[in-house]
Amino acid sequence: MSSKRIAGPEIERLIQLLAKVPGLGPRSARRAALHMIKKREQLLEPLAGAMAEAAAKVTICSTCGNVDTADPCSVCTDPRREDATIIVVEDVADLWALERAAEMNVRYHVLGGTLSPLDGVGPDDLNISGLIDRVASGAVRELILAVNATVEGQATAHYITAQLEDTDVKITRLAHGVPVGGELDYLDEGTLSAALRARTNF
Amino acid sequence: MSSKRIAGPEIERLIQLLAKVPGLGPRSARRAALHMIKKREQLLEPLAGAMAEAAAKVTICSTCGNVDTADPCSVCTDPRREDATIIVVEDVADLWALERAAEMNVRYHVLGGTLSPLDGVGPDDLNISGLIDRVASGAVRELILAVNATVEGQATAHYITAQLEDTDVKITRLAHGVPVGGELDYLDEGTLSAALRARTNF
Repeated sequence: MSSKRIAGPEIERLIQLLAKVPGLGPRSARRAALHMIKKREQLLEPLAGAMAEAAAKVTICSTCGNVDTADPCSVCTDPRREDATIIVVEDVADLWALERAAEMNVRYHVLGGTLSPLDGVGPDDLNISGLIDRVASGAVRELILAVNATVEGQATAHYITAQLEDTDVKITRLAHGVPVGGELDYLDEGTLSAALRARTNF
Repeated sequence: MSSKRIAGPEIERLIQLLAKVPGLGPRSARRAALHMIKKREQLLEPLAGAMAEAAAKVTICSTCGNVDTADPCSVCTDPRREDATIIVVEDVADLWALERAAEMNVRYHVLGGTLSPLDGVGPDDLNISGLIDRVASGAVRELILAVNATVEGQATAHYITAQLEDTDVKITRLAHGVPVGGELDYLDEGTLSAALRARTNF
């Protein structure tokens, strides 16, 4: 907006807030606001209602750390899922991504981040004790550590593994390799080397 | 989302609505929803409120066709602007773009589209009679036709010019030329040819 006001404060505030939404910048926030205003009944009003409802109802699942409108969440209470396997992820976004990718009837556990001593994030800041408790409950046979392939992610994976040393739960991690559709030329050496070591029969 | 539900219906509905916002697709809508939920107090709640307020208050200015929370709008009531010049635009987005670009203390007139016989859009479907009335009021000395450089935009410009033939208002249009920062190599021939014809002293 220029210094001269060209729209009421309500519209400028809407644009300012929309610009904070990931995926929208100041320019696209204006475009989005205008589009919403033009589609008041089809988009602006329903979206305002949906947001207010989500804001009122959203909660963190006390079992797995997922975000939902119920506690325990839809994943934890789903009777079609088996308790034997838990996929451990850093963030709810990873849970959603894995659910889209794979047809696995498993449970999840959201850590809420990774160990990062430099940022002051220790084991107590993550949802790790909850994971230990779930494993101790006995139903879990395999823990798939689907943490990011970063230094922090791997450190977190090692910490969790160490904590569960005395249990007989099987701990696995995601395979490293060439992304499907990826071009070798653009891959880093670590990934290529890992893909070579883990080669399979054709 | 997969067929299995991983979040409550309120969250899925929020994602579905967000995916309709220009600039967001299904994937970024999920990311945006998750970000909002995590920033409930800073983003989700204020945004829900701002949207509800905008939905309740937004109106179309009966003078110029601008979108605002007041009628007449902030532009039409701004005492620092002069009535002598009106910039005619197709859409409110064009008004906003021109306001960002230029420090001109002018008024605007939003047509709400362009003449398009094939789509059944005639002069009565656009805010043209309102423009004629404003010119007839006598204060307007120049009309800048800032319509898009499309066939429909130019046809609309010609129609308006014909309607105002008997008045002594000066009618101008935006200059054609090379976009600032643009590379000649990528420009179409029409633009290059127009830029050549309208060349200025260096």
